[in-house]
Amino acid sequence: MQDLFTVNNLWMMIATTMVFLMHLGFASLEAGLTRSKNTVNILFKNTIIPAIGLLTYAFVGFNLMYPGAEYAGSFFGFAGFGLTLPEGWDTSNYNAGYTYFTDFIFQAMFAATAATIVSGAVAERVKLGPFIFFSFLYVGICYPIVGMWKWGGGFLNTLETPFYDFAGSTIVHSVGGWGALIGAALLGPRIGKYTSRGMTAIPGHNIPLATLGVFLLWFGWFGFNGGSVLSADPGLVSKVFVTTSLAAAAGAFGALIVSYLMFKTYDITMVLNGILAGLVGITAGADQMGVNSSIIIGLIGGGLIVLAVVFFDKIKVDDPVGAISVHLVGGIWGTLAVGIFGDLASVSQFFSQLIGVAAVGVFCVIFAGVIFFVMKKTVGIRVDEAEETEGLDINEHSMRAYPDFATKD
Amino acid sequence: MQDLFTVNNLWMMIATTMVFLMHLGFASLEAGLTRSKNTVNILFKNTIIPAIGLLTYAFVGFNLMYPGAEYAGSFFGFAGFGLTLPEGWDTSNYNAGYTYFTDFIFQAMFAATAATIVSGAVAERVKLGPFIFFSFLYVGICYPIVGMWKWGGGFLNTLETPFYDFAGSTIVHSVGGWGALIGAALLGPRIGKYTSRGMTAIPGHNIPLATLGVFLLWFGWFGFNGGSVLSADPGLVSKVFVTTSLAAAAGAFGALIVSYLMFKTYDITMVLNGILAGLVGITAGADQMGVNSSIIIGLIGGGLIVLAVVFFDKIKVDDPVGAISVHLVGGIWGTLAVGIFGDLASVSQFFSQLIGVAAVGVFCVIFAGVIFFVMKKTVGIRVDEAEETEGLDINEHSMRAYPDFATKD
Amino acid sequence: MQDLFTVNNLWMMIATTMVFLMHLGFASLEAGLTRSKNTVNILFKNTIIPAIGLLTYAFVGFNLMYPGAEYAGSFFGFAGFGLTLPEGWDTSNYNAGYTYFTDFIFQAMFAATAATIVSGAVAERVKLGPFIFFSFLYVGICYPIVGMWKWGGGFLNTLETPFYDFAGSTIVHSVGGWGALIGAALLGPRIGKYTSRGMTAIPGHNIPLATLGVFLLWFGWFGFNGGSVLSADPGLVSKVFVTTSLAAAAGAFGALIVSYLMFKTYDITMVLNGILAGLVGITAGADQMGVNSSIIIGLIGGGLIVLAVVFFDKIKVDDPVGAISVHLVGGIWGTLAVGIFGDLASVSQFFSQLIGVAAVGVFCVIFAGVIFFVMKKTVGIRVDEAEETEGLDINEHSMRAYPDFATKD
Repeated sequence: MQDLFTVNNLWMMIATTMVFLMHLGFASLEAGLTRSKNTVNILFKNTIIPAIGLLTYAFVGFNLMYPGAEYAGSFFGFAGFGLTLPEGWDTSNYNAGYTYFTDFIFQAMFAATAATIVSGAVAERVKLGPFIFFSFLYVGICYPIVGMWKWGGGFLNTLETPFYDFAGSTIVHSVGGWGALIGAALLGPRIGKYTSRGMTAIPGHNIPLATLGVFLLWFGWFGFNGGSVLSADPGLVSKVFVTTSLAAAAGAFGALIVSYLMFKTYDITMVLNGILAGLVGITAGADQMGVNSSIIIGLIGGGLIVLAVVFFDKIKVDDPVGAISVHLVGGIWGTLAVGIFGDLASVSQFFSQLIGVAAVGVFCVIFAGVIFFVMKKTVGIRVDEAEETEGLDINEHSMRAYPDFATKD
Repeated sequence: MQDLFTVNNLWMMIATTMVFLMHLGFASLEAGLTRSKNTVNILFKNTIIPAIGLLTYAFVGFNLMYPGAEYAGSFFGFAGFGLTLPEGWDTSNYNAGYTYFTDFIFQAMFAATAATIVSGAVAERVKLGPFIFFSFLYVGICYPIVGMWKWGGGFLNTLETPFYDFAGSTIVHSVGGWGALIGAALLGPRIGKYTSRGMTAIPGHNIPLATLGVFLLWFGWFGFNGGSVLSADPGLVSKVFVTTSLAAAAGAFGALIVSYLMFKTYDITMVLNGILAGLVGITAGADQMGVNSSIIIGLIGGGLIVLAVVFFDKIKVDDPVGAISVHLVGGIWGTLAVGIFGDLASVSQFFSQLIGVAAVGVFCVIFAGVIFFVMKKTVGIRVDEAEETEGLDINEHSMRAYPDFATKD
Repeated sequence: MQDLFTVNNLWMMIATTMVFLMHLGFASLEAGLTRSKNTVNILFKNTIIPAIGLLTYAFVGFNLMYPGAEYAGSFFGFAGFGLTLPEGWDTSNYNAGYTYFTDFIFQAMFAATAATIVSGAVAERVKLGPFIFFSFLYVGICYPIVGMWKWGGGFLNTLETPFYDFAGSTIVHSVGGWGALIGAALLGPRIGKYTSRGMTAIPGHNIPLATLGVFLLWFGWFGFNGGSVLSADPGLVSKVFVTTSLAAAAGAFGALIVSYLMFKTYDITMVLNGILAGLVGITAGADQMGVNSSIIIGLIGGGLIVLAVVFFDKIKVDDPVGAISVHLVGGIWGTLAVGIFGDLASVSQFFSQLIGVAAVGVFCVIFAGVIFFVMKKTVGIRVDEAEETEGLDINEHSMRAYPDFATKD
């Protein structure tokens, strides 16, 4: 018993470190897919966000998300500020899979993701101060409240057919995705992106960095999904590894095929985002899918992402890194897929999935919308034109990411 | 029992994720050691190959490599398409070290390596489509057939003195190395590499990226070799960690010493490849060697690699990243070293090692040779001169890896 | 029992691989924070140092640091050259947490850190040969002797109130920090850093690389601190994960706040070093601190680092990457903090901490001072002016890190 508890807890701790590394993955991906004049700014945001995530989660987030039966309501619960070690916190009486501290730190690593996803969509034009303020609220309050609805025992978990979201296609990724959509829409597109002559691609400045980011995200996803088993259960975790890997691989091919048919070229950024779409897509049902279903979910997810990128450009929502397509569209797809494929597939499950998607969407859109809108009307959320043109690095950070190298024009 | 099974399986899953990260290592190393005009192309190949590896291994590879006693022949066996969960797949009845899914995913991560190694040697001039086609066949069919000869119970395992290859100096690395040799030889050297005035070094464009790649490969090797124990056995795995680390460290010094004596400069690319040579070299006998033997194997491996690089340049086989030297020469050296050093050293073992090296070599040379040759005579395997000069990125992928930066000339 | 031993040992092995990755973290951070003309040189040092660390630790270091009761004195002990497997080395009779080989390899990964830290402070001007010679002695002899004083049962462990250093704020980080201070002071500042017009900032050439380095170091710290529990004890390791994470996050904010107040800009290099300061600071007492104490230690550590960077510039000790501030100042702070906060806080503990800091400081200053001074007076430790101006890469390594890119002037 003690042995099994030790190995379960060990896995959860290691999964924690893997999820931590996803923040480096996001930082690398977002920096790589944007311009070198804004690189320090992006790295700054993606470095400070995990710090915000950890501190706010310790201060309020954990107790908002997992208030415990005593404090949990259907929509809101709160067990008080700070962390208090419960009796037997380091034994299997707390949980068969982990200690209280492991519970906290594993969940805390997820929290920052919500804002990190937004960071990519608002890149290259958002003001740093307001974005950090937004991140505090979104990570510290919005994310844990939504999380509580499902994982903390709230109303999505008590539907007649409970909403199902294994590791967070909706609860994590679409939360970030909705924030990204609202942020990008309220900010407006980058200068020069959509002109009277149509859409101009603004290429990312460092493809190796973006590729590194995606590999690290994939690596981290083994902890994200594998850790969501909440123990080292050999059958379940290994199944999740297989479904996660195959969906990612199929996502690469889904995006490759669709983007090749549409653009007649081998677009690596589409393949990279296709992998992420496969991963986001499998996340809601990684423990429910078979081999074939995982491949189908990944293939469709990967293809869908290409269409979504084109769609958001069509409606002139400028998302420099494709975050909305990957995390919102991919997250919705993955969540609905639980009702279509796998062990839980049924019409009522599908409707519960729809309810979850919609409820989270409404809440996040309002939450993010109010913050961004109020800031827009007061302090402003967008840097001025001169700063945007010159780059945020030199203006907000007084430095350049690559001072030794000559840039074009 | 259940506890031990859980911890064994946990280690195998974690080792899986470490081997996965080796694909990022290969991508970084190969991109770093080649020119910036071909970087997207290399990253594209190294991103899509793991996807190919996972999908083909699920479709045919796993059942070719481990067909099971019922279907295994001496040279070939096949248990059918796709993955079928056997009875008790998630218990120690399947294997004391892992579940069926863990078995699959750990092995699947190895599979792509065969093509990734080739990718480095054919870089900067191979046509993308034909190379991807080759990768499907080499990873999906050639690699698992060879693997079956030893690890699936085939003829190399039933020699009177069985061929020994702990984690794949021959079965993995030299399979890649032979493909690399054939591919590079049939493609011919890059324009400008060998001229009437002799050999011109074509330096890699990003040494930090290459260094990152080698460190990630070393990191991954703890999973590659450590996972090949196939359980978390404390004595064996920790021994393998030590032999692997010391061989890598000694490989760095072997290459440093020989390259300094030959070139009178501290050549970091040689040191990096020396580390890899030490790692490839110890792989065949990582569980059989003592501390001193590991250091000797690494030292010789590292030195040998410098000579091999010079040799392949002499015979005008252009290998941009040194993949043939590291994986083929290093792989042969490591395989033979099992007959010379360590617990299994004996004359008859040495001959069995030779047989294994030769058998795998003949099969891979024919397999890769036929594919590359047929493609060369039909669709062509090499980009045209204008494209090679301008770079593959802009021609095959319509983009640049670093669009913001000014390049020399 | 066997199961628990297996899981304990597994954690120690995985922690080993995480500490290994810290060497990539150091390499990336140091390369990123210096100029592109010296990048190959820095990567070369940071690649060869782990190799030196592993080999010298096998040859003498391990037996100097952990000589065993039979050979241990108060200040020095030595159990002989090389590694000898003791009876029962792979059972819990050796240690309940790990095998002999795990013990060795985990400790060996720490050893190189001492020289890696120095590497950053002496960057861009130190001669390669002499620095490698220094590294051999500092890693092979100085570090294990100091380590023995505490962890090998020496005099710091037998004080009436024993000196406490959980994972090495003093024993590891300040050892590196003292060497860095002496090296940087004896070398003198880089050309152009301090002129009659005051201090000129010499910006690092690759901020994404530096950021990558810090994330990898943070990741590795889970193994560094978490592994220092010396078993997979669920309560202790998870507590260490939480204290380590919160201190790092708070360190980011400590540095952000102080640097913003002082410089009125969002300085990412300060935030990155603030994270490291938080990590170094928590290292001495990661198992002793509560949530609030961890945050305070990190906050103060992060803020302190900014002041320290300014201070060392004021006294014209040129430390290109801030290594002295992070590892020496941060290490001293963390060590003293054990006497101020947490379970061990007391006046007598504080004085024991002071004794440890001072004893290690005196020994390291003398050890590093003698080596650097003798070399300075004989072979020289600094490259000549032309080489420094042109860059070490082309002069010592005959190559450039980024040959494809045009540099500014």
